[in-house]
Amino acid sequence: MGVRDVPDIVIGRLPIYLRTLNLLSEAGQEFTSSQELGKRLGIGSAQIRKDLSHFGEFGKQGTGYEVSFLRDQISRILNVDRDWDVALVGFGDLGQAIANYGGFATKRFHIRAIFDSDPQKIGEEVNEGVVESIEKLPQIISENNIKVAIIAVPAGAAQEVTDVLIKAGVQAILSYAPITIIVPDNVHVQYIDPVMHLQKMAYYLT
Amino acid sequence: MGVRDVPDIVIGRLPIYLRTLNLLSEAGQEFTSSQELGKRLGIGSAQIRKDLSHFGEFGKQGTGYEVSFLRDQISRILNVDRDWDVALVGFGDLGQAIANYGGFATKRFHIRAIFDSDPQKIGEEVNEGVVESIEKLPQIISENNIKVAIIAVPAGAAQEVTDVLIKAGVQAILSYAPITIIVPDNVHVQYIDPVMHLQKMAYYLT
Repeated sequence: MGVRDVPDIVIGRLPIYLRTLNLLSEAGQEFTSSQELGKRLGIGSAQIRKDLSHFGEFGKQGTGYEVSFLRDQISRILNVDRDWDVALVGFGDLGQAIANYGGFATKRFHIRAIFDSDPQKIGEEVNEGVVESIEKLPQIISENNIKVAIIAVPAGAAQEVTDVLIKAGVQAILSYAPITIIVPDNVHVQYIDPVMHLQKMAYYLT
Repeated sequence: MGVRDVPDIVIGRLPIYLRTLNLLSEAGQEFTSSQELGKRLGIGSAQIRKDLSHFGEFGKQGTGYEVSFLRDQISRILNVDRDWDVALVGFGDLGQAIANYGGFATKRFHIRAIFDSDPQKIGEEVNEGVVESIEKLPQIISENNIKVAIIAVPAGAAQEVTDVLIKAGVQAILSYAPITIIVPDNVHVQYIDPVMHLQKMAYYLT
């Protein structure tokens, strides 16, 4: 890409734009504008134009953006115009819900390897993956060159699992464990903790 | 509270601090410092002190913060030192996983009312709630003065459900639907979309 100096907050908005462009495309709409995107997203149109300008010129004065073209360009920029293999660690209630959720595969993130420490779960097949012993994690991740992992283990196990994943070559971790995990600078982490979202909003409740 | 001018991004960090203080407290630790919190969270200690200074003086020079005191103060600031009733809309695979997830109730968010349009699901009991017809939503939300809702419906239904929730008095919405919803200024929305987190991280993958 060669555009590694784009602010992280801008990168964080690209999936939001992509999601809306996908919806517009599915609805059969051919063209859109920064004004329309802004109105749908609650983001200023100037902000959207500025964000996109980091990566090139995607619109035309007067006609705006071609929906499918801009969608494809943002997919390419985000490296999501290809399939990614994903490892899932933890196959409790939450891990099972994640493994059964169809929304990852439709966006080209395929849960190919699932790991748990419970011997009774090993061998179970789920969608595109099968549950393996946690002891096989380093080997399977490394052999299959898996770069993306989802963590659904208890808080107390999250850091240890993280360390093993990174050692095996994982560079991006989506963690559902309710704890902040420490990673080196070259590894990216994102968190899903619905309770924290509710807590933040409770501040504003009267 | 009277401190409504605190930046939203600061409010967003309070649940992160609270989570860490809860972990320290459970581990039996009595005192902490902005340095220790910063190291655990990957946030600068000066930033943490500045964030907390919006709300008062919570630490002492030399001894730092008393863990349980700071935890209680942040809980109070966030309005999470009390119980909240929560409505859940959508009882498909995702809604069922949310209803069965124990992590909300332990943090005092209680899913009391669950709504779905499928007659076969109505009457089903889950944890602290029971599935009701979506047609009863306005009445039940309003009568029980429910201010917080979780949306787990398909993208195509999310805006309509949102409008009904707000009309019934809901002020905070956590949406799992993969679409941006439009709300008035006095209503707060947070989104959970794991795919968008993966897409953002994919940008950095090599």
